Amino acid sequence: MTSPKPVLLTGASGNLGRMLAAELSARGHSLVLTDIKPFPGPLPAGARFVAADLGDGLSMLRIAEGCGAILHFGGVSVDRPFEEVLDPNIRGLYHVYEAARREGARVLFASSNHSIGFHERPAGNEARIDADCAFRPDSFYGLSKAYGELMGRLYWDKHGVENLNVRIGSCFPEPVDARMLSTWLSFADLARLCADFIAAPKVGHAVIWGASDNPATFWGADHRERIGWKPEDSAEAFRAEVGEKVSGDPVAERYQGGAYCASGYSRATPGPRETFGQD
Amino acid sequence: MTSPKPVLLTGASGNLGRMLAAELSARGHSLVLTDIKPFPGPLPAGARFVAADLGDGLSMLRIAEGCGAILHFGGVSVDRPFEEVLDPNIRGLYHVYEAARREGARVLFASSNHSIGFHERPAGNEARIDADCAFRPDSFYGLSKAYGELMGRLYWDKHGVENLNVRIGSCFPEPVDARMLSTWLSFADLARLCADFIAAPKVGHAVIWGASDNPATFWGADHRERIGWKPEDSAEAFRAEVGEKVSGDPVAERYQGGAYCASGYSRATPGPRETFGQD
Amino acid sequence: MTSPKPVLLTGASGNLGRMLAAELSARGHSLVLTDIKPFPGPLPAGARFVAADLGDGLSMLRIAEGCGAILHFGGVSVDRPFEEVLDPNIRGLYHVYEAARREGARVLFASSNHSIGFHERPAGNEARIDADCAFRPDSFYGLSKAYGELMGRLYWDKHGVENLNVRIGSCFPEPVDARMLSTWLSFADLARLCADFIAAPKVGHAVIWGASDNPATFWGADHRERIGWKPEDSAEAFRAEVGEKVSGDPVAERYQGGAYCASGYSRATPGPRETFGQD
Amino acid sequence: MTSPKPVLLTGASGNLGRMLAAELSARGHSLVLTDIKPFPGPLPAGARFVAADLGDGLSMLRIAEGCGAILHFGGVSVDRPFEEVLDPNIRGLYHVYEAARREGARVLFASSNHSIGFHERPAGNEARIDADCAFRPDSFYGLSKAYGELMGRLYWDKHGVENLNVRIGSCFPEPVDARMLSTWLSFADLARLCADFIAAPKVGHAVIWGASDNPATFWGADHRERIGWKPEDSAEAFRAEVGEKVSGDPVAERYQGGAYCASGYSRATPGPRETFGQD
Amino acid sequence: MTSPKPVLLTGASGNLGRMLAAELSARGHSLVLTDIKPFPGPLPAGARFVAADLGDGLSMLRIAEGCGAILHFGGVSVDRPFEEVLDPNIRGLYHVYEAARREGARVLFASSNHSIGFHERPAGNEARIDADCAFRPDSFYGLSKAYGELMGRLYWDKHGVENLNVRIGSCFPEPVDARMLSTWLSFADLARLCADFIAAPKVGHAVIWGASDNPATFWGADHRERIGWKPEDSAEAFRAEVGEKVSGDPVAERYQGGAYCASGYSRATPGPRETFGQD
Amino acid sequence: MTSPKPVLLTGASGNLGRMLAAELSARGHSLVLTDIKPFPGPLPAGARFVAADLGDGLSMLRIAEGCGAILHFGGVSVDRPFEEVLDPNIRGLYHVYEAARREGARVLFASSNHSIGFHERPAGNEARIDADCAFRPDSFYGLSKAYGELMGRLYWDKHGVENLNVRIGSCFPEPVDARMLSTWLSFADLARLCADFIAAPKVGHAVIWGASDNPATFWGADHRERIGWKPEDSAEAFRAEVGEKVSGDPVAERYQGGAYCASGYSRATPGPRETFGQD
Repeated sequence: MTSPKPVLLTGASGNLGRMLAAELSARGHSLVLTDIKPFPGPLPAGARFVAADLGDGLSMLRIAEGCGAILHFGGVSVDRPFEEVLDPNIRGLYHVYEAARREGARVLFASSNHSIGFHERPAGNEARIDADCAFRPDSFYGLSKAYGELMGRLYWDKHGVENLNVRIGSCFPEPVDARMLSTWLSFADLARLCADFIAAPKVGHAVIWGASDNPATFWGADHRERIGWKPEDSAEAFRAEVGEKVSGDPVAERYQGGAYCASGYSRATPGPRETFGQD
Repeated sequence: MTSPKPVLLTGASGNLGRMLAAELSARGHSLVLTDIKPFPGPLPAGARFVAADLGDGLSMLRIAEGCGAILHFGGVSVDRPFEEVLDPNIRGLYHVYEAARREGARVLFASSNHSIGFHERPAGNEARIDADCAFRPDSFYGLSKAYGELMGRLYWDKHGVENLNVRIGSCFPEPVDARMLSTWLSFADLARLCADFIAAPKVGHAVIWGASDNPATFWGADHRERIGWKPEDSAEAFRAEVGEKVSGDPVAERYQGGAYCASGYSRATPGPRETFGQD
Repeated sequence: MTSPKPVLLTGASGNLGRMLAAELSARGHSLVLTDIKPFPGPLPAGARFVAADLGDGLSMLRIAEGCGAILHFGGVSVDRPFEEVLDPNIRGLYHVYEAARREGARVLFASSNHSIGFHERPAGNEARIDADCAFRPDSFYGLSKAYGELMGRLYWDKHGVENLNVRIGSCFPEPVDARMLSTWLSFADLARLCADFIAAPKVGHAVIWGASDNPATFWGADHRERIGWKPEDSAEAFRAEVGEKVSGDPVAERYQGGAYCASGYSRATPGPRETFGQD
Repeated sequence: MTSPKPVLLTGASGNLGRMLAAELSARGHSLVLTDIKPFPGPLPAGARFVAADLGDGLSMLRIAEGCGAILHFGGVSVDRPFEEVLDPNIRGLYHVYEAARREGARVLFASSNHSIGFHERPAGNEARIDADCAFRPDSFYGLSKAYGELMGRLYWDKHGVENLNVRIGSCFPEPVDARMLSTWLSFADLARLCADFIAAPKVGHAVIWGASDNPATFWGADHRERIGWKPEDSAEAFRAEVGEKVSGDPVAERYQGGAYCASGYSRATPGPRETFGQD
Repeated sequence: MTSPKPVLLTGASGNLGRMLAAELSARGHSLVLTDIKPFPGPLPAGARFVAADLGDGLSMLRIAEGCGAILHFGGVSVDRPFEEVLDPNIRGLYHVYEAARREGARVLFASSNHSIGFHERPAGNEARIDADCAFRPDSFYGLSKAYGELMGRLYWDKHGVENLNVRIGSCFPEPVDARMLSTWLSFADLARLCADFIAAPKVGHAVIWGASDNPATFWGADHRERIGWKPEDSAEAFRAEVGEKVSGDPVAERYQGGAYCASGYSRATPGPRETFGQD
Repeated sequence: MTSPKPVLLTGASGNLGRMLAAELSARGHSLVLTDIKPFPGPLPAGARFVAADLGDGLSMLRIAEGCGAILHFGGVSVDRPFEEVLDPNIRGLYHVYEAARREGARVLFASSNHSIGFHERPAGNEARIDADCAFRPDSFYGLSKAYGELMGRLYWDKHGVENLNVRIGSCFPEPVDARMLSTWLSFADLARLCADFIAAPKVGHAVIWGASDNPATFWGADHRERIGWKPEDSAEAFRAEVGEKVSGDPVAERYQGGAYCASGYSRATPGPRETFGQD
């Protein structure tokens, strides 16, 4: 089943963008692709590409004209200094949501586990955090993702713009270290998620943990039933290969965000487990 | 009891800034005042003023040198277009937190009820929302305040920078409409809150509802015991004068953020009460 | 007869803007007023004011939402250095036309005689130039107005955005020098022109000489019948007062643009009368 | 015959720039080449290269010192979003003309058929449009070219800066589609045009259709006799190869600007043929 | 004796600018005045005013056209954060010197004693420093002035642009503290200095201490004979009034720059007297 | 002997930067490397790399945290237009010195002979200029280097930040023309100089001629004994190869700065030898 209106994909020239463009094209979607960099290689069937800067609002609005859904994978996707995050991930997000509001389009926002990365990893059978947990960003990058989820909240509450915030764990061809046994999201599961989002009758404002069906997951309940998504892959198959690959850094190993938490960490002692009213 | 190190107050030339400068000076604090506009009138005792732009990071860091606490009341304090909010309230906030990290200073951030303004007002004896409720910003301004609280969260988790986020309701000489029977914060209560913050032995990352002891409050538990603050004033005394003054706008009256929620509201029907897993 | 949709007026805080706001309000129009400066004095009935910068595209688009006509009087309205003209008069114009395209609104653009100011003044009974004469801008300001008329041309040809370009002569309470016997536009005639524009069934892309019914006019045929406008005032009544007031500058007196032509003029000898194929 | 003063060529590292640099060098001209990108390959004899940004006015003025003619081929040369056109094609043009004014140099401006692209293609023996036709830009790019021609008009009228505006059709090694049977300009004809421009005793303000001697031309009279240029090549020789290659887009085929007209076209029905007083 | 070409005065709307405009007008000079702020009050005879931003290079070059001398008093004239100094005092200076080079004009640069402020004040009969002493700036402001003197050096060495650098001490109506007994420059002496500069047959690159004939001076030989200037006033007459007014700050009192040296001073102990090879 | 604190090296991805990174790593130093471009090739032992823009002040301050010495080789290192020099070499320098002040670090600034390039080359046995000679910059690049040395002077006088300014002559693998017989600095001598700087007990504010032990040197006394540096290489060994390679340009050959002096030189006649009081 394809969307009657084209789907706009930002960040189309990146790794995830190219994979998604191919997968959604194969599912018969009409696509508008955009990125600040040229699209590498031939365009998939049913897709056109428009080079644009996320920071150029009127161009973003033009590109989105006629689209029924926006998959927002553009912007800075790793931890960078504050100033480098600001324009693409803060200002650019505003342009994406203004476009969605004008088009009556829904938004899938590629959020990140780094928006909540300072939650501790659960030990053994400890309860997993649900998608309504408090934000605990682990970097300026993670902070921009929390900001993006809240902008989605605002546009839903005020303008009825539907949006799905996918807190992507680690989306790689396969897991490369022990942490990814918990956080890995397969390309196929992400592609299915996007397709389900496009097809869903109703989304509202929703949050989904962007991870495959990993037994070692850090994460609990979310809104996946809203779009009917069910991951089919699992990182567990890679345990033998990567189970021993740990960072050795106590901060990285303690918190869900891993190396992002440890980068620049300067606290004398880690904070206690968070309980409301204490800290 | 005064802080041994000077206290930096941003936004010092504004209404709240001038009031706080006078009150803290009267309590014996040594003050560094800053604002992009000149300080109107004579400086209070023990205070010096340095004009600066919150957007100029190195100047902000210089101004903060030697300070033990930062009361951050600077930036845009009403709803404005996205672009006007970005520089002072997003970039400027980063400068304030970098200064605090370098000085080992604690931060009181003048957050706002507009960071959670799309929560509905409680009816009758309905439960009040606690300070750990989900963010539901009602404007770009409110969104910048949520961002600021989360930046405080990040600097606490990663660098141990203590911060108190005061979600100010309506800080005016006295209530001027019915909504303020719930949200009013008296100048005296705010001044005491700031003094308590400076004097508190430990703050961590905390959130406090910035309202006086109003029986009609929208708000429940928070971290006020962390600094030992207890509001002494109440809006109730003004009920006769302002109790009938309602906006008449159904969106403004339904949500806690009032007119900020109604401004630009374009949703066909208000969303249902938020329950996790539904929307 | 009033427009069913509100009319957006840019430059509302300027001299012409304030006058037009009052006049159109009196005619029963619903108005959205905008300017970078606050509106001085009380708002006329049926009007709301939103402060905004013409250079902030997304804000301009928001302000225009729901409007059926845009009267674009904003931007720099006198000759200024190139850099000061660029942002308000070039970039700002793009924002206005993008807004019009999205809203299906029509545009009245306050162009200027300075877009054609280097045409010579006609002697005696010499033929007057028609509105389809070649552009001959006399300043960076005049060049920005020619640019604006051509942007209107582009939006009409490509997007069907209707626009009326009024080459305003001299719009003052009354003529103050001899040149204005030819170029004067009374406030009342301008207000009627705007009202006729709003009410016209069809505008297309049109150009009108913005001058009252002056016997000494420099100008001939234009598209005024398109909106049914007929100026009712005349500068001739002021001849006794101002007929002798000439600049004494040979360049200013030779060309229609007057002092704008003479400002910075550095040509050894004026060019010959333009005939196609010669120069 | 060579110019006694060096010739400045902007955009020297582009396709046309490199070709012209070689051709003019071979004709014995002393050349100053500039571009924001390095010059690829060895410099032709008698040429020096200075990297510079068209947006840096004082540098452009310095580079132009001592030059007697400027061939302005720099800037954006295809249709791009408004913001990407503004700095190089609007601001940069001002810098070029200020340089010319100061040096007493003449300017050849690489304008484009896209400044008039919304004129319809003539059918059969219909009259061709002359160079004094109305501007009908088909894109932001085409609009910047119209602006450039009018800036030339202003600098001629006010400062006596001579300038030749070449509305380049399609300057490629050879025609690649049916439209180019009308619009093709051979490299050799362009090189001769530039050489004739440099050598001409008097230019004034002139406009030339930048096309070879194509029987299927869209264009009529212009000012080519002013510089004594006569194109020697013809696209007709390529009819067999490309005569069937049409776009299939009714808008592109109707208007002279071709695909530029169709790009983003959103008008319900094309406008009628333009006659003055109608639209 | 007046200059045959007009004199350009930047910073004309400031205190010194207005005084100089009046004085030079009274001496019969033709003046071009410029400032970013409007000129307060009526223009003196023989003067015209053009508002401009020192940061707009092409406008500055246009304003300077035809001028034979530039008196550069514009820019930031007190100590300000680095970022506020950069545009007017660094970039703006470049524009002034480019203008001078193009016009063959000479420049009088309002430098400051703060370019050498970290020289110690001489005790008793100790030798005074000459104008060829090492630069020892006492602030970002003072550093920008040293930069300006060296830009003058560069333009003299490379382009033969004559320039006089006046290290102004304290130019006020009369001395207001003890330090000014050494540093005071009377308005009349400054006006004479400017007039002498304009009239001088040859200037080269020169440096003059901008102080009246004060017995308590800090300063020795300079190039004043180059323009034949001899100060006529003396601060000594004010000793009774201000001789006791000292700052009480040991850093301010030790160094010539006074309070500028003390502002932000953070050195554990002052450096020793500078001797080459030691520090 | 290694520094107990890491050494920050800016411009680490450039030619000198890479060489120094390798050499200092080999000497056992812990290094923080930064550049706007990625570091080419594998990192040397004990080094980490952080990409950053010198123009981003807060990032520079973060990168410098914990460092005990800064070797500042970043920025523009050849003559470029004013605007291209301003941000990296003026603003960037301020960020480096602010970082040093905060960290209590010392700075080695890669200055240049072009800060004094308009001193004439000494003939025969004529006296060499000492390091306390007057600045005579030969380009905007050289001017930025003089500015940098004076910023070092300011930070030493006001904040006690130690700094060594190395006026690098020509740092290449070997001399390539006759001028370098005087100005050549071998890589090995530069590496030793940096190592000596790091190890020196006290630096103060010092200036060193950055040249090997060349008999044909232009330069005399400096502060090298302050760090105990003694160059070991000599350009003389290359005389046979390069002794005849002169530019042929009289300006380049007359002045120490060589081709930088000749670039854009427009003076009718060179100035006389500078003697104080004459010019």
